Amino acid sequence: MDFSSYLTSLITAFVIFVVLMVLFAWLSVRPGNKVVYYPNRLLRGVDPFDGGNHSSRNPFAWIREALSSSEQDVIAVSGVDTAVYFVFLSTVLGILVLSGIVLLPVLLPVAATEKTPNTSSDITSNGIFSDLEKLSMRNVAEKSSRLWAFLIATYWVSIVAYCLLWKAYKHISALRVAALISPEVRAEQFAVLVRDIPPAPEGQTMKDQVDSYFKSIYPDTFYGSMIVTNNKEVNKIYKELEGYKKKLARAETIYAESKTTGKPDGVRPTNKTGFLGLAEKVDSIEYYSGKISELTPKLEAEQKATLRDKQQAAALVFFTNRVTAASAAQSLHATMNDTWNVMDAPEPRQIIWTNLTIKFFERPIRRYIISIIVALTIFFYMIPITFVSAIMTLENLKKYLPFLEPIVDIAVIRTVLEAYLPQIVLIVFLDLLPKLLLFLSKLEGIPSQSHIERAASGKYFYFTVLNVFIGVTVGGTLFATFKEIEKDPNSLLTILAASLPDNATFFLTYIAMKFFVGYGLELSRIVPLIIFHLKRKYICKTEAEVKEAWYPGDLEYATRVPGDMLIVTITLCYSVIAPLIILFGVVYFGLGWIILRNQMWPRMHLRILAALVLYQLTMFAYFGTKKFYYATFLVPLIISSLIFAYVCNKKFYRFFRCPALEVASHELKETLHMERIFRTYVPPSLCSEKVEDDRFEDALSHVSRAGPFA
Amino acid sequence: MDFSSYLTSLITAFVIFVVLMVLFAWLSVRPGNKVVYYPNRLLRGVDPFDGGNHSSRNPFAWIREALSSSEQDVIAVSGVDTAVYFVFLSTVLGILVLSGIVLLPVLLPVAATEKTPNTSSDITSNGIFSDLEKLSMRNVAEKSSRLWAFLIATYWVSIVAYCLLWKAYKHISALRVAALISPEVRAEQFAVLVRDIPPAPEGQTMKDQVDSYFKSIYPDTFYGSMIVTNNKEVNKIYKELEGYKKKLARAETIYAESKTTGKPDGVRPTNKTGFLGLAEKVDSIEYYSGKISELTPKLEAEQKATLRDKQQAAALVFFTNRVTAASAAQSLHATMNDTWNVMDAPEPRQIIWTNLTIKFFERPIRRYIISIIVALTIFFYMIPITFVSAIMTLENLKKYLPFLEPIVDIAVIRTVLEAYLPQIVLIVFLDLLPKLLLFLSKLEGIPSQSHIERAASGKYFYFTVLNVFIGVTVGGTLFATFKEIEKDPNSLLTILAASLPDNATFFLTYIAMKFFVGYGLELSRIVPLIIFHLKRKYICKTEAEVKEAWYPGDLEYATRVPGDMLIVTITLCYSVIAPLIILFGVVYFGLGWIILRNQMWPRMHLRILAALVLYQLTMFAYFGTKKFYYATFLVPLIISSLIFAYVCNKKFYRFFRCPALEVASHELKETLHMERIFRTYVPPSLCSEKVEDDRFEDALSHVSRAGPFA
Repeated sequence: MDFSSYLTSLITAFVIFVVLMVLFAWLSVRPGNKVVYYPNRLLRGVDPFDGGNHSSRNPFAWIREALSSSEQDVIAVSGVDTAVYFVFLSTVLGILVLSGIVLLPVLLPVAATEKTPNTSSDITSNGIFSDLEKLSMRNVAEKSSRLWAFLIATYWVSIVAYCLLWKAYKHISALRVAALISPEVRAEQFAVLVRDIPPAPEGQTMKDQVDSYFKSIYPDTFYGSMIVTNNKEVNKIYKELEGYKKKLARAETIYAESKTTGKPDGVRPTNKTGFLGLAEKVDSIEYYSGKISELTPKLEAEQKATLRDKQQAAALVFFTNRVTAASAAQSLHATMNDTWNVMDAPEPRQIIWTNLTIKFFERPIRRYIISIIVALTIFFYMIPITFVSAIMTLENLKKYLPFLEPIVDIAVIRTVLEAYLPQIVLIVFLDLLPKLLLFLSKLEGIPSQSHIERAASGKYFYFTVLNVFIGVTVGGTLFATFKEIEKDPNSLLTILAASLPDNATFFLTYIAMKFFVGYGLELSRIVPLIIFHLKRKYICKTEAEVKEAWYPGDLEYATRVPGDMLIVTITLCYSVIAPLIILFGVVYFGLGWIILRNQMWPRMHLRILAALVLYQLTMFAYFGTKKFYYATFLVPLIISSLIFAYVCNKKFYRFFRCPALEVASHELKETLHMERIFRTYVPPSLCSEKVEDDRFEDALSHVSRAGPFA
Repeated sequence: MDFSSYLTSLITAFVIFVVLMVLFAWLSVRPGNKVVYYPNRLLRGVDPFDGGNHSSRNPFAWIREALSSSEQDVIAVSGVDTAVYFVFLSTVLGILVLSGIVLLPVLLPVAATEKTPNTSSDITSNGIFSDLEKLSMRNVAEKSSRLWAFLIATYWVSIVAYCLLWKAYKHISALRVAALISPEVRAEQFAVLVRDIPPAPEGQTMKDQVDSYFKSIYPDTFYGSMIVTNNKEVNKIYKELEGYKKKLARAETIYAESKTTGKPDGVRPTNKTGFLGLAEKVDSIEYYSGKISELTPKLEAEQKATLRDKQQAAALVFFTNRVTAASAAQSLHATMNDTWNVMDAPEPRQIIWTNLTIKFFERPIRRYIISIIVALTIFFYMIPITFVSAIMTLENLKKYLPFLEPIVDIAVIRTVLEAYLPQIVLIVFLDLLPKLLLFLSKLEGIPSQSHIERAASGKYFYFTVLNVFIGVTVGGTLFATFKEIEKDPNSLLTILAASLPDNATFFLTYIAMKFFVGYGLELSRIVPLIIFHLKRKYICKTEAEVKEAWYPGDLEYATRVPGDMLIVTITLCYSVIAPLIILFGVVYFGLGWIILRNQMWPRMHLRILAALVLYQLTMFAYFGTKKFYYATFLVPLIISSLIFAYVCNKKFYRFFRCPALEVASHELKETLHMERIFRTYVPPSLCSEKVEDDRFEDALSHVSRAGPFA
């Protein structure tokens, strides 16, 4: 890729970004769109165009807001998770800025003023250096003493990363402490999840067994238990019933509307019943009302049956005390580890009920099988991606697909294609995967939704790093230099390392694409806006349906963070080889820092470190191709990265896995309302308002309290 | 080694055993020796020659006793540890007996009746098969369909091992439950060990900090804390004082004796003072009394100073409740994992006080360094042992040490040397190591003595298996076939596998030596008896000194169990190749089963399994040399061993690492006397009787109890 094509791609991306921003400015101030642009504020009952901020009608006011808001504001408005993501972005941004401040003014002149370009490792197709490549380490001759500057730069980036990562881990530990010692009652802090309950002895229900077991161990602090039931049947009826309720509301709205617009009596809406609507037409309101009154007693009967007869081998157990719950979740309860396994309770709305009852030895088996499937996926996804990176050059495209030649030869198309084709294909490929990974993670048997997202996020990270970063480097190089390698297979490694600077340009474009187009689309919310307006116009009738249409989805941890991590990896790895990439990284994370998001820290920390080690290894290999034997000085750096990872893991990690008791022992603000905590865990399908309390004597009832404290 | 030399060695060993047994029979009934033969009974206040057993004066009555005693008797008499060892021996014995019952009648005829001896892998120096070797798998031809019998036998041994190991693990879990739910108060069940306490804030002592920290987390169940102090100085004074007290008692005994034997006034004993006794002679009783009254106030002053000013960053914390202590030891307390680390308290007399204050990150560093040292030791110990196995044949001895030829050529010496020389050298080498390993394990920073012994035992196991089992096989073979390997280095593996049957004979002798001579010496207690009588005659004067002389030492877990494990490994590995070895194994463990001992189970389990996998791999290799390609059927067996290890580990192991809460919640027999529990942990040097209680307001005092329950 020559310099002009590179410039074109940058300019195109920037133009797209500007267009999207203008769209955003125009669309976001229109009141009809505010549900799309400010859903979280509306949900919190705040008018997005109101408030103390005078310039709040300015669509870009949020930038100033983001820059000036303190961490406490962030937590108050968007929660701890967002604050964690905030720290992640600042940390990466800090690493890049501090690296850039030193590396750009030092390394660019050092590289650019080198007089003797090294041609031995020059393997680009046209054989000349682009202006861009003159600024990279590629321009430095073998064994040149200028390489010392690059070696020291490698150390500098690593040391900056260590310091900022350490600070960030401490900071986030403090955030977690603050969140956990909060005097607000959070239901999951009082509950534990018990799995692998052995079959109840003859004449005892599961419920009796669980109650007596925990009552004997925690006589003073045991509050009650909730046995997990098989809700498949009851959920089905509940869903059907809710569906009819929605349809009834919709039919009533249509009927009311028709009264105002058409005849004064209105047109009673009708619908067809039977398979594919083949049967006769019926009056909707009557039909749905009938269905509802038919299903309601059926649901109640099924609820009773479920609670009594469908108790499973898992339960939620509640304590009157946070310390007991926290320490119970960390302790071994039964002598056989495959029974009475106790762990932290997930948040009520995060629980995956069907995963709670998976058997003890089935869980690792599922985990291993899924690992194998994921490994295969990672491996076989390389094939299309390798192919994509192979057709990165138009020359190849023309060679293998000659019928494209007339189109490709048009100058504009040619330039755009050259600049964007591979990146677009790459992005499309990457967007196909997340749902598969989420599905696979759920199959693993993880009991909570957020944990599933973390697991999928991890898989996606390995996938992107292996396939995009390594795949593109290896694939592109192999294709470009196939002949050379055929002649001398041993030169493979040398050629791979030597081709790193070529790929730097590819990744520069990739990052630019990501932030201009990706962030642009995201900020302007064009796609959700269009979908929302279409839905409102043609589908949504009731208020509830409209709300459902703009209600913000989950934040897609599973793909967002790995995407960011890929950029971290790429930027770090090329930071010394082609220091210009730091600028792009800074812009990417600078924008991201303004457009806040969220995730969990320890895995982020680990992956930044993994990126750092990969970077150090890359540098080690690349210094090798420059025949700069002092590169061995990088070995202590790699070792110190491993030690740093070990120390951080030992010092910080356990607190993220389980709550520290000193934190759990902080006092609560409100008086404890255990019944309310207990109720938060009752699934909606088992807890309709009409049900009397005596029903709960089954799986859901907490034990009759006999102790002096309860 | 030919058959006659082998027979000689067996007969010699048996003669030694008979002689030792006769000695035992004669010596053990003499009342003067009873302290040596029955120390544990005497310590428990039982007269060894008394009791309901009528034939108890019969020295071999203990055999009948051992055979007829139930597990409850064993626990009552010798404790749970002994019962565990009992189960270990029965399990191994069971595996060997069940294997032998099937393998001996089937495989011996199958091997012996094979007509076509396979000469291609015959590499013994004289080129003929001994009678013994005819009974081994070596006698079976390549690709013979008789090998199927050996393949099935391999499966049989493994399946027997799985069943018995599973049963044993369950059994020992039950033993552990019984021990833990015992209603006896055991101090260590109420205490936890806290390490890595951060420096106390200004104006607070360490003691205040620990008390307020745990009081806030466990307001109802916290009893008190005991800060670990630096006792180096006080221990020195205490030791000196105790020494003088002993010497005074001794001098008084001598004086009293001299009154009865010599002059009626007696001779007042004297001693010399000063360096090397160069100064003047003084009256012993006066001198020691003076020293004692001089040191006693010094000790008291030092005790006060220690408790006040030498508080360290570790403490023992006591709870009024077993469940709280058990769950506290398993829970994370502080947000930073390198502070406030809580673990189970060791038994009072097992604590290694100096190891408690080692810093958080220093502990893994020590562990890694020690691992490296141990690995080096294991590696370099191979050099002498390889040399030993090389001179296993007298031919080699004569060749390299020609001056020995006249001696070696005498028939008797020759036979004995041939039979025993290598084994004796091996045993000597192995006896040099344990103290080093114990010392290294202590340096690791492990806080309890029994844990140190387990760690040393593990190291010793790897050492023996690697060096003795593998070292002898590899070393002996390499030496014997050096020429062949020089010609074709690729044949190394084939030759190694093919030489397995040769080594079988060596190990047969080794096991015979072990049980005849080893057990014989141990049963007859000749060595401790001689030492005891010498001591009593020439050194011991006071009752206390005599008791010290016969007081049984610790049971040397660190070397005994690995020794047994080595036999397990050898017997298992050769069980199918040379089934005769099963007989020797049965005798070894049968004798051991009678001569009970003790250890911890999960590591034993793991090591028996390791031996099993090694055996399966050996068989796989050896079937390979027979060109029996159905040997691939062994692959699922090896995999199933790994799965079995995984399942057992998952199901059982965690309970051995930490006490299950269901067990800890059982009720106690006696009313809780917390002060007594607390006192058991006070080191003797800090707790002389004369000290008033107000002293303990320092590091040792438990907190002033303010809560409503304490």
